[in-house]
Amino acid sequence: MTAKYRVAVIVGSLRKDSYTRRLAKALMALAPASLDCHIVEIGDLPLYTEDLDAAPPAAWTRFRQDISRADAVLFVTPEYNRSVPGGLKNAIDVGSRPPQQSVWDGLPAAVVSQSPYKLGGFGANHHIRQSLVFLNMPVLQQPEAYIPQVGELFDDVGELTAEAQAFLTRLVAAFVNWVALVGGARPSGAER
Amino acid sequence: MTAKYRVAVIVGSLRKDSYTRRLAKALMALAPASLDCHIVEIGDLPLYTEDLDAAPPAAWTRFRQDISRADAVLFVTPEYNRSVPGGLKNAIDVGSRPPQQSVWDGLPAAVVSQSPYKLGGFGANHHIRQSLVFLNMPVLQQPEAYIPQVGELFDDVGELTAEAQAFLTRLVAAFVNWVALVGGARPSGAER
Amino acid sequence: MTAKYRVAVIVGSLRKDSYTRRLAKALMALAPASLDCHIVEIGDLPLYTEDLDAAPPAAWTRFRQDISRADAVLFVTPEYNRSVPGGLKNAIDVGSRPPQQSVWDGLPAAVVSQSPYKLGGFGANHHIRQSLVFLNMPVLQQPEAYIPQVGELFDDVGELTAEAQAFLTRLVAAFVNWVALVGGARPSGAER
Amino acid sequence: MTAKYRVAVIVGSLRKDSYTRRLAKALMALAPASLDCHIVEIGDLPLYTEDLDAAPPAAWTRFRQDISRADAVLFVTPEYNRSVPGGLKNAIDVGSRPPQQSVWDGLPAAVVSQSPYKLGGFGANHHIRQSLVFLNMPVLQQPEAYIPQVGELFDDVGELTAEAQAFLTRLVAAFVNWVALVGGARPSGAER
Repeated sequence: MTAKYRVAVIVGSLRKDSYTRRLAKALMALAPASLDCHIVEIGDLPLYTEDLDAAPPAAWTRFRQDISRADAVLFVTPEYNRSVPGGLKNAIDVGSRPPQQSVWDGLPAAVVSQSPYKLGGFGANHHIRQSLVFLNMPVLQQPEAYIPQVGELFDDVGELTAEAQAFLTRLVAAFVNWVALVGGARPSGAER
Repeated sequence: MTAKYRVAVIVGSLRKDSYTRRLAKALMALAPASLDCHIVEIGDLPLYTEDLDAAPPAAWTRFRQDISRADAVLFVTPEYNRSVPGGLKNAIDVGSRPPQQSVWDGLPAAVVSQSPYKLGGFGANHHIRQSLVFLNMPVLQQPEAYIPQVGELFDDVGELTAEAQAFLTRLVAAFVNWVALVGGARPSGAER
Repeated sequence: MTAKYRVAVIVGSLRKDSYTRRLAKALMALAPASLDCHIVEIGDLPLYTEDLDAAPPAAWTRFRQDISRADAVLFVTPEYNRSVPGGLKNAIDVGSRPPQQSVWDGLPAAVVSQSPYKLGGFGANHHIRQSLVFLNMPVLQQPEAYIPQVGELFDDVGELTAEAQAFLTRLVAAFVNWVALVGGARPSGAER
Repeated sequence: MTAKYRVAVIVGSLRKDSYTRRLAKALMALAPASLDCHIVEIGDLPLYTEDLDAAPPAAWTRFRQDISRADAVLFVTPEYNRSVPGGLKNAIDVGSRPPQQSVWDGLPAAVVSQSPYKLGGFGANHHIRQSLVFLNMPVLQQPEAYIPQVGELFDDVGELTAEAQAFLTRLVAAFVNWVALVGGARPSGAER
């Protein structure tokens, strides 16, 4: 397997043992050899303000470099107040600045949202998608991933249920195809 | 004038000399005596995570107390990546937690968005509104305030133009009426 | 009981035996004596175009008159393609024109969405809410009503389950309070 | 030039001499030889209801066939009440049904919105995009096309201004690239 895509996985919850992180890791474990997935942390990013652009915090620089090295982005997130968690939106903002230096430009993406209830983070999912339009990130449409009752993905010993595994496998396969299809839209090896 | 409403003004940009802050101050200057407006700062709030709920950062507690003392909330914000700035969304999240202890519950609100271009922050404005549904904050509908080309609100010596003053005055008047109308929906003097 | 509010109930599905209509009727049956609810039909409205404004179709005129006589509006809708059914959006458009003659202006509203699956029509619900901002219709925030698995509202003999009845009763009560609270925002008895 | 893509252009306004239609025609005139663009009319489509699925109106069948023959879709639309015009949403709904027989599945798309004012139909644009996720239509992200003050696209003799021509040319070029890139995602020549 020679073709490799580096995938930056961004976890929208900052809680250490969050279901979101477990879900992200389950997705990473299901990824085929053609994807090289790694979580890019966002919890240490100072809130974005233009006042710091001249001398950016080290965490911003680290984050921007990590995304710059990626070929695709997988957002996995809970919903806070029917929208994107502030911490995740801050990471999106940090990566998008300064003007003309966005590290997101052209990267294929997928958005997976979850909630402990039935709505599956639909509101967060689509608010992220609205940002991805501006950021020029072609985003996987189907299968949509609004995962309800996230706790039920896992059985008593913490393994994915068969049903969960089947859905997430299908999702990962669609993402792989998407990245292969639209990844060529950006200049390969180009400085960003 | 005996009836007084305390209004928490939240500025979505963290930049010191931001147009958003100038706009917020212009709105505050136009407020009638019945409104007691003060900016509640959000730039020092650590990113929300449940892991800190047991021993909340001092900035979270300060912010929650400031909002708890308010009778209404005025959001004034730029748009980042077609949505709410991460720092503002984080403040909304901090105020909403822990569960059942949201400080936003029942507070009348208005949302004013701006941009340096034509779109006036429409995307940010409506994403905030989606959160306000969940937070049970009755929100002013008209006049909508998507303020385009924000720099043009001010003349060469930094004063509001006549046209800007007319619009913002109308907006503040509608907000005052809204607060008076729906402020009674929440238990006056009640513990929140 | 002297105070009476006329409520126009708008059913977003045009199917004769739709769950949406059953849900609307269930809500109407739970309404207290202070609400006078009636369904305003939308299925016969020709698609809106300015070309017909000079000589509006009879169905448009009938619809506009029905809404004009109402004191509040209750939208009950399914979701089509993650948004508002075209027929319902068309009704909203018909009522909003010609310019300066919208029949919606100032009417308190609530939005109830449903789906046969888990998402409860969240997308449709919030897209309607975005229109209500422009239309100046103050809208009930809580309880949100994204009703999942709508078929399960009813038992084997077609009666509301106890759980469904409890939720819908709470919803109607909140709507009554909302109409009483903000109904005064528009000139009583005024020509619209 | 052998490679040809058939593009269904859908005009969201039903007004005969609408600016939307003029804009659509301007885009079609700028299309390169590789695109075969034609407007698919939506004004005669009866409102969607499942009750007619068994014996669909002729206009529905005609519309579905027209879209089935297309390789891509270009939506050009005004904004009605901060959302999609009811007539356009109805066309989207008609094309999406009956279940499992959507004619939209997999078709690459672009969304161009316009308004006579500054907001450029941002609300309509993104509401359509939310539907496109469900419909599995990969959608062009950049350049976004929220065209403000649509009348100013054209000069005194009805020709595109140089600035308008430059932007629309860039938009069409990006759309061509997008169709070429993701058009392969659907089975070529497959029955839909």
